[in-house]
Amino acid sequence: MDGKKVVIIGGVALGPKAACRLKRLEPGAEVVMIDQDEYISYGGCGIPYFISGDVNSVQDLMSTSFHMLRNPQFFEDVKDVKVRARTRAIAIDRQKRTVRVLDLGTNAEEDLPYDHLVIATGSTAFRPPIPGVELPGVTSVTNLHSAMEVKDRISKGKVDRAVIVGAGAIGCEMAEALGDLWGIETHLVEIADQVLPGILAPSLAAIVKNHLEEKGVRVLLGRRVAEIRRGDEDGQLEVSLKPDETIRAQLVITAVGVRPNCELARSAGLATGATGAIIVNQMLQTSDPRIFAGGDCIEIPHLITGQSVFFPQGSLANRQGRVIGTNIAGGAAKFEGTVGSFSMKVFDLGIASTGITPQTAIKNGFDAQSVLVVQADRAHFYPTQDLMYFQLTVDRKTRRILGAQAIGSNGDAVSGRINAIAAILPFKPTVEDISNLEIAYSPPFASALDVLNAAGNTAENILDGLNRPMEPGEFEKCFIMEENPDILCLDVRSPANAAPFVERYGDRWLNIPQETLGKRFDEVPKDKRLLLVCNSGVRSYEAMRQLENAGITNTVNVQGGAAALKKAGVFPKADEGDKNHD
Amino acid sequence: MDGKKVVIIGGVALGPKAACRLKRLEPGAEVVMIDQDEYISYGGCGIPYFISGDVNSVQDLMSTSFHMLRNPQFFEDVKDVKVRARTRAIAIDRQKRTVRVLDLGTNAEEDLPYDHLVIATGSTAFRPPIPGVELPGVTSVTNLHSAMEVKDRISKGKVDRAVIVGAGAIGCEMAEALGDLWGIETHLVEIADQVLPGILAPSLAAIVKNHLEEKGVRVLLGRRVAEIRRGDEDGQLEVSLKPDETIRAQLVITAVGVRPNCELARSAGLATGATGAIIVNQMLQTSDPRIFAGGDCIEIPHLITGQSVFFPQGSLANRQGRVIGTNIAGGAAKFEGTVGSFSMKVFDLGIASTGITPQTAIKNGFDAQSVLVVQADRAHFYPTQDLMYFQLTVDRKTRRILGAQAIGSNGDAVSGRINAIAAILPFKPTVEDISNLEIAYSPPFASALDVLNAAGNTAENILDGLNRPMEPGEFEKCFIMEENPDILCLDVRSPANAAPFVERYGDRWLNIPQETLGKRFDEVPKDKRLLLVCNSGVRSYEAMRQLENAGITNTVNVQGGAAALKKAGVFPKADEGDKNHD
Repeated sequence: MDGKKVVIIGGVALGPKAACRLKRLEPGAEVVMIDQDEYISYGGCGIPYFISGDVNSVQDLMSTSFHMLRNPQFFEDVKDVKVRARTRAIAIDRQKRTVRVLDLGTNAEEDLPYDHLVIATGSTAFRPPIPGVELPGVTSVTNLHSAMEVKDRISKGKVDRAVIVGAGAIGCEMAEALGDLWGIETHLVEIADQVLPGILAPSLAAIVKNHLEEKGVRVLLGRRVAEIRRGDEDGQLEVSLKPDETIRAQLVITAVGVRPNCELARSAGLATGATGAIIVNQMLQTSDPRIFAGGDCIEIPHLITGQSVFFPQGSLANRQGRVIGTNIAGGAAKFEGTVGSFSMKVFDLGIASTGITPQTAIKNGFDAQSVLVVQADRAHFYPTQDLMYFQLTVDRKTRRILGAQAIGSNGDAVSGRINAIAAILPFKPTVEDISNLEIAYSPPFASALDVLNAAGNTAENILDGLNRPMEPGEFEKCFIMEENPDILCLDVRSPANAAPFVERYGDRWLNIPQETLGKRFDEVPKDKRLLLVCNSGVRSYEAMRQLENAGITNTVNVQGGAAALKKAGVFPKADEGDKNHD
Repeated sequence: MDGKKVVIIGGVALGPKAACRLKRLEPGAEVVMIDQDEYISYGGCGIPYFISGDVNSVQDLMSTSFHMLRNPQFFEDVKDVKVRARTRAIAIDRQKRTVRVLDLGTNAEEDLPYDHLVIATGSTAFRPPIPGVELPGVTSVTNLHSAMEVKDRISKGKVDRAVIVGAGAIGCEMAEALGDLWGIETHLVEIADQVLPGILAPSLAAIVKNHLEEKGVRVLLGRRVAEIRRGDEDGQLEVSLKPDETIRAQLVITAVGVRPNCELARSAGLATGATGAIIVNQMLQTSDPRIFAGGDCIEIPHLITGQSVFFPQGSLANRQGRVIGTNIAGGAAKFEGTVGSFSMKVFDLGIASTGITPQTAIKNGFDAQSVLVVQADRAHFYPTQDLMYFQLTVDRKTRRILGAQAIGSNGDAVSGRINAIAAILPFKPTVEDISNLEIAYSPPFASALDVLNAAGNTAENILDGLNRPMEPGEFEKCFIMEENPDILCLDVRSPANAAPFVERYGDRWLNIPQETLGKRFDEVPKDKRLLLVCNSGVRSYEAMRQLENAGITNTVNVQGGAAALKKAGVFPKADEGDKNHD
């Protein structure tokens, strides 16, 4: 086997991982890794933190945890992998098993022979077809070059105002990067009606939007950028939105997703899928078994929907790289697909998700139910506790868990819960598995009945018809916006908590504390639909059961209660009452 | 079904949960909950945090998250559950279906009829048979009365020095409680040769011990308390240890475990098991199907070993309470067993565990392998990163995961990873499942190749014979303590990192940086056993593969590297070299 020739096209994430794994298993393999860039093997996901200043230098993104720069010399000395930077692969000859490469320094072309080839060409930021998108000052910040350029301009004080096009993950992260440390007035424009569309359930997206606004980011939903011009007077960029508005800014960042780099593979006749990305089998072989592909240029099975998806994630690229390294060395490792886990930080919020949202579930034919629970992220008496907003997506018919998402100020606690769900998703868990998931308990790190278990229990109660839920967004629509006269809010919190709401909403907001409800059924109107509200949805569930027993059944329980509504900014600030975790 | 009479014996954790769940499902049930104490429904696990001052008042431990005191009136008004505090159950008549109760206030006895009975009598701290254990000032702090008494004495400045007997979870938590805020000179005496015996793998226990010592706790392992006396002169307690030593102290806390309270059940002829606790089926029925039991007085199946175990945990009690409530209401909920999850905080360390330790695995007939990985708990370039010490226990034959434990300064990150393992343990995962577990990735919350996945990969490499591991404890034994002349430490870190070690250990410590190793094989002694060391075990694994390729195979890789050894205090402080995460 010695002397096996392996060419790896692409030197970030998957490429280096495949190369190093292969060399550890088969030290005699001759591995050449090429990349058209001068920078290789950097942590691209760290770019927003480099922009924000959390990460000081690009060197940090290019170094190992033991402070060695992962440059070509490093790969040569430490890994015995030959790296050719600034070298572009321009064609694959599958018959001759060669890759034609162009040295971008010398313009010389050359054929590299291979026994196995790895395509790790990654993805490129999609540039939306907006007039003016090519103007200087308009950029997508997805590689180190543009990142350094943007940071340079910012740190020299040349940017007072910025427009970010697209409120996906990168857009929201960049909003924090620009706003938090640099204090740049930031406008975040999103064509959809929520931030993180397709990524977060609406009830959680509303919380993120409100938080962005609290942090000074102007969030414009349902708006698109019609044109970008250079202003006549001062050379600033003028960003025209539809509906009508023009924002003057010195920086425009487009963050509307990435596209797989598949031209090379496609020209070589390798199969690509409906997503536009390269098709691979579980061994991560393309339609040519000598050619492997992985990372941001392939499509992979989604383990919940069964569909092939394009889900570019540095973590998946690393795992796939190991699979490819193993398999080129003669192993039989498999990459079976994704459950869709991701996490992110937006200012003070940690956000994590796995599986699919209710919206995606419905599109995929599931009878989806969304479940929202708000509870302390550790024992409620422990001083560092804070509320976690935890959402489950379940299938009503099969009781199967389809996804989970959470938000909270303690991001490790948030992602820790979501990782537990991610772990079992491949095993097709039911709500009962979540109720029984054995979270490691002690007051500093969990509740005796942890928020995750509470979500499982709540899902059970909903599926069993004991708890009829209403989404916070639906509450906002029918109670706040439409002021539907046939509905009444029954607030079962203490009078102190309820008072400001009673004052504002008058006889549409009735307060009967839950502990007195058993003696006051006659005060409950029977001719209205009752929206039961407490602070989190727990006591209002208790109230629902009491009312049910008294024959009052025209009730729904507002999921997440006043806590979720407040966190999403549904009420005018003056209404929020006390800050107690009532 | 209305009017079903249910008596619940025990008003903490399981009892209230069973009562409330039942009442929500079946509001007509007549539920009476009795408890011999005046305090009910409190968070007993919070006691160490009450002692430490993290939790200000016992009221906080007895309140709901919305600040309502969970006293008898609360259960009456909010839950429609009748509570009789200071009432002791003294006998069960299973024929007549009555419980004989004694009112501790009036001394009146009474028979309470039941259709269903719930035994939730909990556990009691075991008082070790030490002469003097009954003296005033010697206490176990497992109920609110003793907790308040101890805190009262401490806060009045009456305790300068304390002895804690037993370095289990409660003992270690109490050491923090006494030492951290109050500055009490604390001696922690443990009969076993490690702290947290039977709970933590030795490699992690060594880290906890070192941390306790860094925080000023004196840890005495392999020592037992022979006698406690009251000193003649000043009335202080004199604690005599074997081997010989006497410590004078004002407070002695015994923390040597708890025993299930099963006398009542046993007298009624209900079956108890080898653990001494009540036997129940998956519905949590005792040998009398009308009588349910749960919480700290039952034994439950361990899902890894298949054995019945006594594993008292407030979290399990809550889940079991819900199962009992459901089943009394005519449901068919099941409690299938435990995977043994727990977490705890010891000063600045978060500790979490699930499944079983290598030692327990070996006792249970598994061919157990311990795997230790040390890696940043998030992207290594993210500013808040810190090292996590992550241990996996795997079965060599089946590649099954038997347990996982971790330690780190960020306890939420630690418990989050362990919860992910806990989630899949019931599904009998293999090491490959851990390699592929889809941790939600972003630099603030995970690594692209997360520490958990790295542990899975390392386990694979060990089971596949690519990585021959040595435990840190074994390194300490053969290299530091025995100074075995036939072994040599080959340190593949940078000269700067290695220098202090070379200086101390002379020609027993050879430094060849891994990036130069490929050109320096001739400097490697062939007649010695080589202990490969880097900072974490990753580069030394790379070196092992290189050496193997060069025909040098008498090597082992010190798991967790210098980081794990330093964290466990193996080296004299002067040797630690720089603090870089090399």
